Amino acid sequence: MSKLRLRISMSLDGYVAGPDQSEENPLGVGGTALHEWFFPLRAFRQMHGEEGGEVNASSAVIDESLQGIGAVIMGRNMFGPVRGPWPDDSWRGWWGEDPPFHNPVFVLTHHSREPLEMQGGTTFHFVTDGIEAALARATDAAGGLDVALGGGASTANQYLAAGLVDELLISIAPVILGEGERLFAGVPPRDLKLTQVRAVDAPGVTHIKYSAATDPAAS
Amino acid sequence: MSKLRLRISMSLDGYVAGPDQSEENPLGVGGTALHEWFFPLRAFRQMHGEEGGEVNASSAVIDESLQGIGAVIMGRNMFGPVRGPWPDDSWRGWWGEDPPFHNPVFVLTHHSREPLEMQGGTTFHFVTDGIEAALARATDAAGGLDVALGGGASTANQYLAAGLVDELLISIAPVILGEGERLFAGVPPRDLKLTQVRAVDAPGVTHIKYSAATDPAAS
Repeated sequence: MSKLRLRISMSLDGYVAGPDQSEENPLGVGGTALHEWFFPLRAFRQMHGEEGGEVNASSAVIDESLQGIGAVIMGRNMFGPVRGPWPDDSWRGWWGEDPPFHNPVFVLTHHSREPLEMQGGTTFHFVTDGIEAALARATDAAGGLDVALGGGASTANQYLAAGLVDELLISIAPVILGEGERLFAGVPPRDLKLTQVRAVDAPGVTHIKYSAATDPAAS
Repeated sequence: MSKLRLRISMSLDGYVAGPDQSEENPLGVGGTALHEWFFPLRAFRQMHGEEGGEVNASSAVIDESLQGIGAVIMGRNMFGPVRGPWPDDSWRGWWGEDPPFHNPVFVLTHHSREPLEMQGGTTFHFVTDGIEAALARATDAAGGLDVALGGGASTANQYLAAGLVDELLISIAPVILGEGERLFAGVPPRDLKLTQVRAVDAPGVTHIKYSAATDPAAS
């Protein structure tokens, strides 16, 4: 049974991006601090075609989060800063010509666009008929492997609210943002039962894995 | 140098109590779930005069959090459900005649009341002249040991916002509350620099210890 697995970095006060996201500031004001644990790692540098980097307790967590993934779902704001109808096909994502996904990526949007095939096995598919359709297509594309759910908050929260997320890997950064995009906003709490699977103490971050079950009887 | 140490249980979405706190429901609706990891422990049962109980990875964290403490500060809502002027001296705290503090406890309130001496070394002092006065009195009473800061959220947030907290031990429960009392609400994020000291994976909870420094230059 294919799982939907959310992996996201969050501030200690519950935000996954700062306010005022823009092309210059895709994670919002202060949001880069959520990922500072990640930048020195060899895994991060490899994703960006660079040599070197650290291996620490986060490395095994990252490796595990990438294992068994056959497709990716993300929101349009994670794909790029363009809002409204696509003016043209010039925006090709934040990640250059060889994005670090190496799998089909399903981008939720209200505006249709032809699939965009990149190098290294990543093809962006633009899905306009909602989260359940995107999950069905991603699950099909994953061919029995799991589906990774990226951000942003809005996309993650829609899947959480619908009870479609099976596993959460929350990387809690030692940061207070105070405002921005909140994970779990609008998610009916009684519908989401979390079980802590494991916590990992790593330099500058704590990774907590939860399994999720929806309990409609409790709501 | 005496430290002010906050220890508090928080939901994954940042709440330290549920909504609608009352005498029947002192932690608010759903708030008991924040502490479910604690109830089976021998440390919890001992505090309440009971035998038995589990020893697990949380036990050492609790032990450490109690070590080196010479005084306690808490908000009035943590002391009890009475609001407004004290009608009489009949409310003596949630904890019975031998409260688990065994130290002077400074209760922040707008309404003065005589000190209340309990069994086992706990005396409740009611402080009406603000958080800095309470900290000064608690530090003095602690005689070189540290001061423990309990909840609720309002009290913790006032001390955090004033840059007076030196250490935070946040016990993150696998719970989404969705509403209630938020830790860090109103705390200016740029003033509070956290450094992750350690995370402990325990059954049903993750304990993360942070050191805090205020950075007035960054605000």
